[in-house]
Amino acid sequence: MSHPWSAVPGGVTAPAGFLASGITAGLKASGRPDLALLLAPAGAVCAGTFTQTRVRAACVDLCAQRLRASGGVARAVLINSGQANACTGERGLADSLQATAALAERLGVTPEEVLLCSTGVIGVPIPMELLLAGLEPLVAGLNPEEGGGAAARAILTTDLVEKECALEARLGGRVVRIGGMAKGSGMIHPAMATMLGFVSCDAGVPADAWEGMVRRAVERSFNAITVDGDTSTNDTLLAFAAGEPLPPDHFDALEAGLTAVAQRLARAIARDGEGATCLIEARVEGAVDAASARAIARTICGSSLVKCAIHGRDPNWGRIVAAAGRAGVPFDPNSMALWLGEHQLMAAGQPLPFDRAAASAYMRERAAGAYLEDDTVVIRLVVGSGAGEGRAWGCDLSDQYVRINADYTT
Amino acid sequence: MSHPWSAVPGGVTAPAGFLASGITAGLKASGRPDLALLLAPAGAVCAGTFTQTRVRAACVDLCAQRLRASGGVARAVLINSGQANACTGERGLADSLQATAALAERLGVTPEEVLLCSTGVIGVPIPMELLLAGLEPLVAGLNPEEGGGAAARAILTTDLVEKECALEARLGGRVVRIGGMAKGSGMIHPAMATMLGFVSCDAGVPADAWEGMVRRAVERSFNAITVDGDTSTNDTLLAFAAGEPLPPDHFDALEAGLTAVAQRLARAIARDGEGATCLIEARVEGAVDAASARAIARTICGSSLVKCAIHGRDPNWGRIVAAAGRAGVPFDPNSMALWLGEHQLMAAGQPLPFDRAAASAYMRERAAGAYLEDDTVVIRLVVGSGAGEGRAWGCDLSDQYVRINADYTT
Repeated sequence: MSHPWSAVPGGVTAPAGFLASGITAGLKASGRPDLALLLAPAGAVCAGTFTQTRVRAACVDLCAQRLRASGGVARAVLINSGQANACTGERGLADSLQATAALAERLGVTPEEVLLCSTGVIGVPIPMELLLAGLEPLVAGLNPEEGGGAAARAILTTDLVEKECALEARLGGRVVRIGGMAKGSGMIHPAMATMLGFVSCDAGVPADAWEGMVRRAVERSFNAITVDGDTSTNDTLLAFAAGEPLPPDHFDALEAGLTAVAQRLARAIARDGEGATCLIEARVEGAVDAASARAIARTICGSSLVKCAIHGRDPNWGRIVAAAGRAGVPFDPNSMALWLGEHQLMAAGQPLPFDRAAASAYMRERAAGAYLEDDTVVIRLVVGSGAGEGRAWGCDLSDQYVRINADYTT
Repeated sequence: MSHPWSAVPGGVTAPAGFLASGITAGLKASGRPDLALLLAPAGAVCAGTFTQTRVRAACVDLCAQRLRASGGVARAVLINSGQANACTGERGLADSLQATAALAERLGVTPEEVLLCSTGVIGVPIPMELLLAGLEPLVAGLNPEEGGGAAARAILTTDLVEKECALEARLGGRVVRIGGMAKGSGMIHPAMATMLGFVSCDAGVPADAWEGMVRRAVERSFNAITVDGDTSTNDTLLAFAAGEPLPPDHFDALEAGLTAVAQRLARAIARDGEGATCLIEARVEGAVDAASARAIARTICGSSLVKCAIHGRDPNWGRIVAAAGRAGVPFDPNSMALWLGEHQLMAAGQPLPFDRAAASAYMRERAAGAYLEDDTVVIRLVVGSGAGEGRAWGCDLSDQYVRINADYTT
């Protein structure tokens, strides 16, 4: 998608008026940062998307309820890492209410304007004394510069790298910025309280328009990644927008930037998947519609056999088309054409002769590439002549993934 | 399910009137048996269930078309292993027609009464000269005793063990037998042209009644197993019934036996999953209906994180309930109760204190148990007070699985 956006340094505090903070409150045994705060300017709208699981944490329910009740208005989100606070019964909700009320008082806002996200071990409640004691230094640390990076560090659990980005563009005669941060999963922990994403934007947008943009952007970013097919009890994306109102004729451009930020964060989560050595991008074209294309792309990225083949640098096209076949969407198998990087492996639904060693070398080189720059193995599958295009992202499946998840008990 | 069936030796030729054969036709480079034939008595009805993928082999289309056209009547099925004959274009169908026509002529039946199943590498056509040359010794080898075992060996690709079983019961004043054989997947091959199952029964049943029994039995057996979430281009189950008509008041008992045979074969496939060290059985109770219970059970068995935890002998209940939560069916998380073997890990949706070392030892002992006898790790999850019960089977995910599928190029 072509758009007027260019990258700028920073993350959630790159947009004007947003403050953030991150501290070590002692919630994690490791002593790493574990409590973060993002504060949006007065008048901010906020859209959220949440895990669809039946088993979800009390804080997720609280976020969803408060945004529904307010019509998409919120000021702040508190994020603790270390404890998912899921499967903790009534205590989970009581602690969430207490934490947001205490923070609201310090910030001078209403409790209903404060949201809470938790990530970490399922079934473990938050050590509330530590969290409550951390609120004073957390609020004191709010700032528009290092605050974004500090928050991005404090929301990680077992991630290997921080995930933040920011874009800017001239829209309606002024500079608009969108920033974001996210966490995925890494080693040691149960790796299910995985995905949190936070986005900030310094353009004013009506809550309902913003909600639509966020929903569509998530569909093409966070909902298009997979590490291991397991979803979380706590997955949440929250996106704030606040600032001078943006004329509606720039909404398409704004949505393009929002989608770009969301995709960048989502790709970073997939790349940082447990045990991964490369990012996999599946591009599907010619499907009956975009949703069908994304479904095929996501099924390819989620296939254990495809993931193992790429880990083994094996150009195993049979596994790719077999995965496409079970995606649950219609297409004509005899129209399939397949590329791995520049190497075409199939045409008209049948295998082509190709340079197996070169295709394998392509994957080896990609896995040795620089993080998120040129470390992406690209699978391109054309499934017909329809207008539907879609992408999904995943990572290879290594024996390291198994060892991470088998050897370390919770 | 209590039923009047007891195990007897043998497989598909245990029921009266069924003949089988298995030979080495040279289709496999390994020199192992690779061509099998099952011949049902005159008047046999046959029901089939086939892979739902969009990318399926020509022989699967041929089987489905012939059974539809005949209203569920067939006499024989030819099975080759080594080549899946999928993604082979028009040649795939032409070869399938030629193979079944040549066999029909030798058997003195019509081509429309002959079915074909292929398993092996995707994209590789069958070496037709070798297959056609093999038909004479194959037909000559037909017999009601060793034939079943020879066929069970010849349909394997990279399976570690043969999978056959037979049951008998007194129904309507006489002995009725049901036999079956199946293949799954093992090492080295791409492991997608995986599942074939064949069932024989020496009771006469109308084609439509038999088709309903087979469909329901498959739902509770083959459709309730998972090794790695990847489905095949060639998955097929064919079930033949022929003999003295059985009075309809015994149909429920017959279906119980058919289900037991199908479950035994399905469990054997899951246990023989690539790299597996144990069978996992998920029993879900209290769901709103049986389909919901099976969906939850299958999602648990399919979770990479659950499979890794069991491989690591880690009683990681959080992963089990997180998988249940994303099964897409309604239940109240606060009603969950969970057992691992005899160890209760949760009640009322929250963790209980339990003996972690003993729960881990339970899994270690099960993984060291005898094949399909006491090597099953049982997960029991109660999700409410509904009447819905269901089971699913899978296997643990080992680093060996990754090495098998990453190291060996096709």
